Amino acid sequence: MKKDLFKHKPLTAYDAIYEAQKIAYAPLVFQAVRAMRELGILTQLDEYKSGVSAKDIAEKLKLSLYAVETLLESGLSSGVVEIDEYEMYHLSKTGVYLLHDEMTRINMDYNHYICYQGMYHLDEACKTEKPAGLRVFGEQWQTLYQALPHLPEKIKKSWYAFDHFYSDSAYPVALPIIFQSRPKTIMDIGANVGKFSILAAKYDSDVRITMVDLHDQLQNAVDNVSEAGLTDHIDSLAMDLLDRAQSFPKGIDVFWLSQFLSCFGKQEIVSILQRIADAMGDNDRLYILETCWDRQQHEASAYSLINTSLYFTAIASGNSKMYHSDELIDCIKQAGLQVCQIHDNIGICHSLFECGNSESE
Amino acid sequence: MKKDLFKHKPLTAYDAIYEAQKIAYAPLVFQAVRAMRELGILTQLDEYKSGVSAKDIAEKLKLSLYAVETLLESGLSSGVVEIDEYEMYHLSKTGVYLLHDEMTRINMDYNHYICYQGMYHLDEACKTEKPAGLRVFGEQWQTLYQALPHLPEKIKKSWYAFDHFYSDSAYPVALPIIFQSRPKTIMDIGANVGKFSILAAKYDSDVRITMVDLHDQLQNAVDNVSEAGLTDHIDSLAMDLLDRAQSFPKGIDVFWLSQFLSCFGKQEIVSILQRIADAMGDNDRLYILETCWDRQQHEASAYSLINTSLYFTAIASGNSKMYHSDELIDCIKQAGLQVCQIHDNIGICHSLFECGNSESE
Repeated sequence: MKKDLFKHKPLTAYDAIYEAQKIAYAPLVFQAVRAMRELGILTQLDEYKSGVSAKDIAEKLKLSLYAVETLLESGLSSGVVEIDEYEMYHLSKTGVYLLHDEMTRINMDYNHYICYQGMYHLDEACKTEKPAGLRVFGEQWQTLYQALPHLPEKIKKSWYAFDHFYSDSAYPVALPIIFQSRPKTIMDIGANVGKFSILAAKYDSDVRITMVDLHDQLQNAVDNVSEAGLTDHIDSLAMDLLDRAQSFPKGIDVFWLSQFLSCFGKQEIVSILQRIADAMGDNDRLYILETCWDRQQHEASAYSLINTSLYFTAIASGNSKMYHSDELIDCIKQAGLQVCQIHDNIGICHSLFECGNSESE
Repeated sequence: MKKDLFKHKPLTAYDAIYEAQKIAYAPLVFQAVRAMRELGILTQLDEYKSGVSAKDIAEKLKLSLYAVETLLESGLSSGVVEIDEYEMYHLSKTGVYLLHDEMTRINMDYNHYICYQGMYHLDEACKTEKPAGLRVFGEQWQTLYQALPHLPEKIKKSWYAFDHFYSDSAYPVALPIIFQSRPKTIMDIGANVGKFSILAAKYDSDVRITMVDLHDQLQNAVDNVSEAGLTDHIDSLAMDLLDRAQSFPKGIDVFWLSQFLSCFGKQEIVSILQRIADAMGDNDRLYILETCWDRQQHEASAYSLINTSLYFTAIASGNSKMYHSDELIDCIKQAGLQVCQIHDNIGICHSLFECGNSESE
């Protein structure tokens, strides 16, 4: 635990019961704000800086006055909109972020399309250590990663937007660190759609990269590599790392794990890292890019990460999360590796763990 | 608008973006708190006032350490639990209310079982003025009130618990007011399960009561009256008030509408009130018991009511809400009635509107 996080002020009994109601009504408030964003009400408020009436918004957007008033009143209660003495509505500062801030928009879409419905089954997921909420996307999947390529476009899009928004900000900062040792070969484990591999191949045209992922996932990555004209630099290897019999080839200079270990439980993480350690020579490096809630500059980031863990519990895997850095370091050590250096503040919220084979040190 | 409600403090940009994330993650936080309550984690924290470790909670409740830690970390972020320097967890004051306060528990159950899943379709409901979220309970219903008697027990129970919790606190305060004029006949419109009629018949054994509701709803009320041995005092009349051809008999001293008008749109309300006005003689009275968010003593009550409106939009009717008192008064006047007196602070959060036929004044 990072001691200075989430130090809440002491509350009066009245304030505490009010806070409890805010939690009790939280899903309704979320959907009211989202509806105002989707229906264009927040945009209307943003356009009329000097205020606009509910009636004018309703007419402009061809919505009923009833619907507009009901949503605006909820928005008043949640501090997203404000009202002046002439009964004209305004967008609050919080509302401005909900409307314009890309991160907030992506978080909200993700929590609606990917998380909202399945989260209904969170208590069951906690009891069974299975992603019980995943069934809202079909009964046939064991993990979200199997389901992902087969989900409806809008849902899939919100997943990739979320995943890429955070990694896109981190990769340009991570690349110079990784390439300091001038690796000739990189294995991109959990390559997803191939974003990192493509960037790395462009960063250094001498490097040879192998993308590793589930068979169904990999197809998309291979297509993207082909489209980027990088098939001579990047190849692929289908592996299911939950199968402990699957091992890595030797002779890889750099193993790269980006936003990958958060998809696995601790025992699985140790098993994956052990297999990487087995393949690593004295001078080879393992780089782990993760978002650890205890290493954030701002409490708001820690808040978002800690609650994204619930997505892993209910939807993605049933047994993984956004780990505290101490937990990751513990897994790294258990696998016989050691952390050489931790680079914080990579992009918006990442930390880069540089690891070596401890026997070699 | 009541001017002193929801006056939020000016926020810094950082605070505003944090508030925006709290809204973006609101459904996940709700489910994490609910899971902690359902799985017994809040109770464990409450039992060990000097603190308890995640490991001890997990062992006691036969849950994985992973699940307990993930939920507790979310609880830290939302101020429901606290952690001390020895990494022992405690229940916060907000957590105490979430665990022990009956109102908070009932609100949370209602928002989970009745509202959560259907609220996913709030934006569609706003566009169509239909309760688009009701389809999660079956495609065949036009309003929640038709569906209610046929819903699974747990869901139905959470609806009645919510409905009764608030009305139970109001009826004992309302009865002496209604019986001041010693009415001989009362029509209980929207009788629901007959709670008010039974209380009123017990309050004054000389009064004759007619319960009015939808046919399917009424069966339950009739059974309850029979069980209470009050069939000689209370009869019933099946009516669908959305059918404007259905009129009320004359010769009723008191018309009683409890938590009923919030189920209808304003045009429907005016139509219902007009038909009551047509049946009312000079000295007859109409009593309307409603929860108006602008007439609350505490902002927390206004917050809960304003956001309960979203339930009416997405689940119940598509066109009704917890009205502002000005809106109700406007409907009453449009129907040719007048408000003689408003009694506030009836029970937890009700106002009682005493109305007469304006021609008689």
